[in-house]
Amino acid sequence: MTQTTAIPPTMRAAVLTGQQALSVKEVPTPAYAADEVLIEVAAVGVCGSDTHYFRHGRIGDFVVDAPLILGHELSGRIVAVGADVADSRIGERVAVEPQKPCRSCRECRAGQYNLCRRMEFYATPPIDGAFARYCVIRDEYAHRVPDSMSDEAAALLEPLSVAITTMRKARVAPGSSILIAGAGPIGIICAQTARAFGAAEIIVSDLVPERRERALRYGATRVLDPRETDVATAGLDVNAFVDASGAARAVFSGIRAVRPGGVAVLVGLGSTEMSLPIEHIQNFEVTVTGIFRYTDTWPAAIHLVSAGLVDLDSLVTGRFDLDHAAQALESDLDPDSLKAIVRPGP
Amino acid sequence: MTQTTAIPPTMRAAVLTGQQALSVKEVPTPAYAADEVLIEVAAVGVCGSDTHYFRHGRIGDFVVDAPLILGHELSGRIVAVGADVADSRIGERVAVEPQKPCRSCRECRAGQYNLCRRMEFYATPPIDGAFARYCVIRDEYAHRVPDSMSDEAAALLEPLSVAITTMRKARVAPGSSILIAGAGPIGIICAQTARAFGAAEIIVSDLVPERRERALRYGATRVLDPRETDVATAGLDVNAFVDASGAARAVFSGIRAVRPGGVAVLVGLGSTEMSLPIEHIQNFEVTVTGIFRYTDTWPAAIHLVSAGLVDLDSLVTGRFDLDHAAQALESDLDPDSLKAIVRPGP
Amino acid sequence: MTQTTAIPPTMRAAVLTGQQALSVKEVPTPAYAADEVLIEVAAVGVCGSDTHYFRHGRIGDFVVDAPLILGHELSGRIVAVGADVADSRIGERVAVEPQKPCRSCRECRAGQYNLCRRMEFYATPPIDGAFARYCVIRDEYAHRVPDSMSDEAAALLEPLSVAITTMRKARVAPGSSILIAGAGPIGIICAQTARAFGAAEIIVSDLVPERRERALRYGATRVLDPRETDVATAGLDVNAFVDASGAARAVFSGIRAVRPGGVAVLVGLGSTEMSLPIEHIQNFEVTVTGIFRYTDTWPAAIHLVSAGLVDLDSLVTGRFDLDHAAQALESDLDPDSLKAIVRPGP
Amino acid sequence: MTQTTAIPPTMRAAVLTGQQALSVKEVPTPAYAADEVLIEVAAVGVCGSDTHYFRHGRIGDFVVDAPLILGHELSGRIVAVGADVADSRIGERVAVEPQKPCRSCRECRAGQYNLCRRMEFYATPPIDGAFARYCVIRDEYAHRVPDSMSDEAAALLEPLSVAITTMRKARVAPGSSILIAGAGPIGIICAQTARAFGAAEIIVSDLVPERRERALRYGATRVLDPRETDVATAGLDVNAFVDASGAARAVFSGIRAVRPGGVAVLVGLGSTEMSLPIEHIQNFEVTVTGIFRYTDTWPAAIHLVSAGLVDLDSLVTGRFDLDHAAQALESDLDPDSLKAIVRPGP
Repeated sequence: MTQTTAIPPTMRAAVLTGQQALSVKEVPTPAYAADEVLIEVAAVGVCGSDTHYFRHGRIGDFVVDAPLILGHELSGRIVAVGADVADSRIGERVAVEPQKPCRSCRECRAGQYNLCRRMEFYATPPIDGAFARYCVIRDEYAHRVPDSMSDEAAALLEPLSVAITTMRKARVAPGSSILIAGAGPIGIICAQTARAFGAAEIIVSDLVPERRERALRYGATRVLDPRETDVATAGLDVNAFVDASGAARAVFSGIRAVRPGGVAVLVGLGSTEMSLPIEHIQNFEVTVTGIFRYTDTWPAAIHLVSAGLVDLDSLVTGRFDLDHAAQALESDLDPDSLKAIVRPGP
Repeated sequence: MTQTTAIPPTMRAAVLTGQQALSVKEVPTPAYAADEVLIEVAAVGVCGSDTHYFRHGRIGDFVVDAPLILGHELSGRIVAVGADVADSRIGERVAVEPQKPCRSCRECRAGQYNLCRRMEFYATPPIDGAFARYCVIRDEYAHRVPDSMSDEAAALLEPLSVAITTMRKARVAPGSSILIAGAGPIGIICAQTARAFGAAEIIVSDLVPERRERALRYGATRVLDPRETDVATAGLDVNAFVDASGAARAVFSGIRAVRPGGVAVLVGLGSTEMSLPIEHIQNFEVTVTGIFRYTDTWPAAIHLVSAGLVDLDSLVTGRFDLDHAAQALESDLDPDSLKAIVRPGP
Repeated sequence: MTQTTAIPPTMRAAVLTGQQALSVKEVPTPAYAADEVLIEVAAVGVCGSDTHYFRHGRIGDFVVDAPLILGHELSGRIVAVGADVADSRIGERVAVEPQKPCRSCRECRAGQYNLCRRMEFYATPPIDGAFARYCVIRDEYAHRVPDSMSDEAAALLEPLSVAITTMRKARVAPGSSILIAGAGPIGIICAQTARAFGAAEIIVSDLVPERRERALRYGATRVLDPRETDVATAGLDVNAFVDASGAARAVFSGIRAVRPGGVAVLVGLGSTEMSLPIEHIQNFEVTVTGIFRYTDTWPAAIHLVSAGLVDLDSLVTGRFDLDHAAQALESDLDPDSLKAIVRPGP
Repeated sequence: MTQTTAIPPTMRAAVLTGQQALSVKEVPTPAYAADEVLIEVAAVGVCGSDTHYFRHGRIGDFVVDAPLILGHELSGRIVAVGADVADSRIGERVAVEPQKPCRSCRECRAGQYNLCRRMEFYATPPIDGAFARYCVIRDEYAHRVPDSMSDEAAALLEPLSVAITTMRKARVAPGSSILIAGAGPIGIICAQTARAFGAAEIIVSDLVPERRERALRYGATRVLDPRETDVATAGLDVNAFVDASGAARAVFSGIRAVRPGGVAVLVGLGSTEMSLPIEHIQNFEVTVTGIFRYTDTWPAAIHLVSAGLVDLDSLVTGRFDLDHAAQALESDLDPDSLKAIVRPGP
């Protein structure tokens, strides 16, 4: 193991110790294995799942029953490397793909490592995340970013990866038409990504006028208020529907807007079960699926941002230091907020 | 137009004139266009949709509001050909792919002619089917069958085409595991077809012991009573789930039995909407879809039967002439019945 | 059949009557069937195949043995429609997809209508093309273009369709790297299209400095002189190689530049046979294929041009009327020429 | 590490020490890591590549410049396991997938681990193979086989894996037609596998009458002598061509026998470069590729043999102990030989 400067044995981290209970503590700096790198965290985006763990102490079957460090959208700088990693990586600015698959199960061998059933994923109990001075990731999941990219944009390559996965599943290609339900952070990034994938028609539905306005600035070619337009019967006839709302009604109507042979991708998280328009799915052979994280998206994400095809910087509406991480987690209460960033550095 | 023997201007047909009202009438022999052939019908399988039209006068949005000839699983002999068809086809024994797509719409040009929105499909109002002495189809949809294949097997290439489409959508290949819900005609043909596609594990669930027994004779490697085994939690972990039951509970549980990255194909017809396990679909990226008829399946179907890989003959449990077509349509009331055949010939 | 103004029974056309023999004649205005439209031609691009027929009287097995009208890259205005076509189409500005597949063969039914063995394709003996006042095409192959698109750009949607097909075959997606051999018209349009498909790295090789310069203006991120850089061993490691040169040496080296699991698409026409690096193809499972025209590309092409992602107008380096069509066909002799346009109108 | 019986520190192995120089020596028993298992070898198939290394000391860029143990088609019994492997595996009869990919490179993460550029593959310099009492493999690459499967069939799951990969690449499915050039071991296993994948037409070409006869016993529906039938012009029009001959002429003709949109898979190894029919590849959009080993084939292979769909046992024409391994390597000189097996046990 090699490092430029002495790494302190402990570090500051914002630790979730119970529902709504976040406290900044001195915790051990994580150890890194031979194939891993130690990263000094620069910026961490706040995701809805972080907020959900903070408020409810669980997401479905994942329960926070021991102190947990949140945060999985992050960038930083490599400050030390394991024995099998090239020393030359020290000093690199990187975006982190925050997952550690087992690499040997059927799914991993098949290239579907996101579906690894032994996955260790950042900020998912009991695996710590990045609201901390340092974190550790395998060599190949620390993706070098160009100097021109900001720390914040580099952190937000993670939600962009969700959007890229969505576009791939939705088979969006030059000329496609797509309907996106929900103009929150994921919906807005999906709209931009759809444009970058060449979609000709990008329709975004949202209940809130300000959010619809925002969608128009980020790639939507048309916006809809679902209370005024019944998307199911409006003749949209889109190649793909993407749900980024989690709302049962939006999902039901959106699937019915899909043309024969098209695709519906459910990204928004909601209920355990949902009623779907089976007859439409059958008679028009619509494919319905969901996405669960991502595989091999960072290189594409880095290109989309570097080439100016996707703008992540302007999505940031709030910046917080570690001592104000709880506020960052609650910033979704402000309707004008889109994306909060925690900067754990001193 | 060429023909070997004089074709009479009228023919006998079993005509549906109202709910439960079927009468044998003398109707005009259908005219055939330059690119069509006239077929003397040999055997017609009775499908659940025929029975449904007979009993209820409608299926969803398709309403029988004028006299209709039912029957769309059929074989016969070419007795006359249109001007653009080779005379040498006269006399051929053929299986009929009972559809007439528009050939010019987006779906047709893309090879998804089953999804053509201007489709004229046999026995779907207002298009007549094959419970009649003669019927007409385009040249390329009359598929020559070998002498060794019976008329009845040739007729049942239609439901076999449904099963082939299902296996393709379910991505069944050598070594796959599959769960099939429902051991009726489609379930049984799917089990056989799954075996012919190389599936290693073919699990069939059904409530009725006799039907489970039958499944074991037709390719199932294991059968389940869903009241005794909760398929959702039994660790089946199959590549593909096929619903051939139309039962909401079977669909919900079956999808949960699918492994990460697997597929669920809904073949059974049931309700307009259905509650699905969204969280499982999302967390395991399961693909859910339905099938609507078929494209390019007859050549494969002919091979599977000719090579002895699928047995259709033994599925026939009743044979009826045109005057007893109504009985054929009601034969599903007999629990021992699997497939009824109508033979419209003299 | 409906038309706004009287269509004259004859029209002017530039007719190829022998090798290097082109004469403008009065020929019958073509008849249009019930499912066809009559188009008054606005602009026709000159393709290398037109020039080849002009100079050599044949391309491989296709021999010009009767008078032939050349030209298959075209736009125009619908001036009359067949009985089955909506009258409202009269007056539409359209780009023409210049093919007439049989619609009933195996390939057509499978959506591969470009591979139809009974294809009637413009300007391919004995089918006439568009160096004429009028031409005829099926309704669905006359693609409406927006008012903002010039006649010339609309004509050049045809070579853009070649590039779109190439990118699809080459599986180019956001983040891809691609090597293109040859910076002629097709190479330049491919470079632009690769950029529109999201390619991150677009390397163009050409022997001529001016052509390399041009490639840099049209999307190339890097250019190479193959006499200075051995593309096979330069470590390019691209996802896809596209040959738009037809040169045996470029093809051989280019395939060796493809990474494991990548694709090589041969667009440039050259010899009947060619020596390929089989060991590289096998050891790295490279897929090698060619393209033959296109299916379903005009909607995407219209979007790419309308959205400003591909610039076709600036490719035009010469404009000719019908009386100077022979000069247009020889304009490739001028090294500064990129694309010549014939405008057959009065 | 756990083991049932004491593993001796050294073992007997047949070591290649130079061209044509094979000697049985006492060498160190290989060490196994925490995620690996130690296997007592039962049976090893002799592959053409083993013979080639024996005769020529190299295959292309792979040069034998230090003592090397050959043999990579093998079965055996697990006799010890690393610390991370379940003890219960000790005693299992297994077939070995003889590769050790790096698991972290781009190809490995994408599920194309066969294309890993840091691969350690059995019997490929400098990695030892299985002509020895023991060998080592990672836990997940030791595939349990049923009791009903012989040691020899279990060893030959390796060439069957080549055939399965070939059929997948060739997109063989029920109803397909396929042309296979060469009726040696791979050609014969490919013919059987094509049948198991549902191919309707399996045409095998070979120069030798006895080999053609053999092909007919193993699945071929038709055999050809390429000196009598020009496969390029015989109208075969197959979905897929598989070359298992390595002969330039067979490859050239075979590709020309492929129908529009079909596939050619080059399995046979021959020259570094080869002349291919480019015009046919382009005009008919034929896809040409090669295969390099396999990913995820053992489960399917085990099913095909267990279900009786592929017969491997009867392919064995000679059995040799370690002291006669050189004879096994030369058994291809006997025209009646198909597959030699080395049994390294005492």
